Amino acid sequence: MNRLYHFPLSPFCRKVRLTLAEKKIEVELVEERYWEESQDFMRRNPAGKVPVLRMGSRFMADSAAICEYLEETQPSPPLLPGSAEKRHEARRLVAWFDDKFYREVTVKLLGERVFRKLMGTGYPDSTLVKEGAKAIKFHLDYMAWLLEQRRWLAGDSMTLADFAAAGHLSCLDYISDVDWDRSEAVKDWYAKVKSRPAFRSILADQVPGFPPSRQYADLDF
Amino acid sequence: MNRLYHFPLSPFCRKVRLTLAEKKIEVELVEERYWEESQDFMRRNPAGKVPVLRMGSRFMADSAAICEYLEETQPSPPLLPGSAEKRHEARRLVAWFDDKFYREVTVKLLGERVFRKLMGTGYPDSTLVKEGAKAIKFHLDYMAWLLEQRRWLAGDSMTLADFAAAGHLSCLDYISDVDWDRSEAVKDWYAKVKSRPAFRSILADQVPGFPPSRQYADLDF
Repeated sequence: MNRLYHFPLSPFCRKVRLTLAEKKIEVELVEERYWEESQDFMRRNPAGKVPVLRMGSRFMADSAAICEYLEETQPSPPLLPGSAEKRHEARRLVAWFDDKFYREVTVKLLGERVFRKLMGTGYPDSTLVKEGAKAIKFHLDYMAWLLEQRRWLAGDSMTLADFAAAGHLSCLDYISDVDWDRSEAVKDWYAKVKSRPAFRSILADQVPGFPPSRQYADLDF
Repeated sequence: MNRLYHFPLSPFCRKVRLTLAEKKIEVELVEERYWEESQDFMRRNPAGKVPVLRMGSRFMADSAAICEYLEETQPSPPLLPGSAEKRHEARRLVAWFDDKFYREVTVKLLGERVFRKLMGTGYPDSTLVKEGAKAIKFHLDYMAWLLEQRRWLAGDSMTLADFAAAGHLSCLDYISDVDWDRSEAVKDWYAKVKSRPAFRSILADQVPGFPPSRQYADLDF
């Protein structure tokens, strides 16, 4: 059976999990404390990061490269639009969240408040947490601006961009770090994504020592 | 005419420049001091980063998304292999260089030694420079290991992975931070990439205040 080495609160793994579930590709989820860099894991991915997808005897790494592979080998339902211009826009937004949002928000909130403790690297740096809390407002406003013109983040259909964004925001919602009242448009969008069957396994995630926020699994948040 | 907003010592811009040149797509290069965040530039790319490609009236951002767009709209010569598995491998390696190598090496060497001065953010942090100088050895060894089994980094044909790697290594070579004697295989590979006509404009790059190293433009380095 296919296998995904992942960590529950990894936005990158969540993007791949959503992609797999939408495309109805079954995988066994194997939790990997990747920061412990076990020999076995480093052999599977010398980059030392999750997700790693095993299909047959092949190990695949990097969430963006995995999603492109899944899109090419299992095109239905499509998670990239039909035209090259619109595909560019979807990929640009995947990078927006997995690069810019990740560095400006996810690392500073989730990284400081959860992963520091999990990895045993000390206490949260309150300056970084404050920076993250400030930066997420800019990003929510940018999403709101996009969603005022579009049904989904990259256009009229659901794409990998929505899964990238939902990967980060759902991890932050787990620790109550998203102000859903900031934008009706963003809240409506997240309600749409959250209610998809593909999202169920993510809403069931639990990390010991870090119980999810009250609204985390609630579809009427 | 098409236009590429870029900065000479940006590995991400170099990857796109190589891709454009291989595909014989002419562009006017416009140097952009992106860290100054001019209003005009932020309108073109709210992520505030180069490269930004203007084609017709459309502005496109994110180097990976741009390369995918160019590959889809101008497939000849192909810079991704034919099979989904091999395409995954090429994309995995693009991410290896643009994410892992960038954070572990480029930011710590080029970022500290050049961009700090350009951006006016102080003196190089010698601890980071040392970390970068140590990490590049691991990466050169990983490349050597790949190149002992393959003609190019991702397989038997030249791909975006080679351009991603060459983007970073050429910027580091500009400041003499690559030990080409560490691996014959890596040196041979770089000589092959460097001698391509697409590389010429990169070898002519100059950043005022930072003259290139002696071997930078030398094809017999």
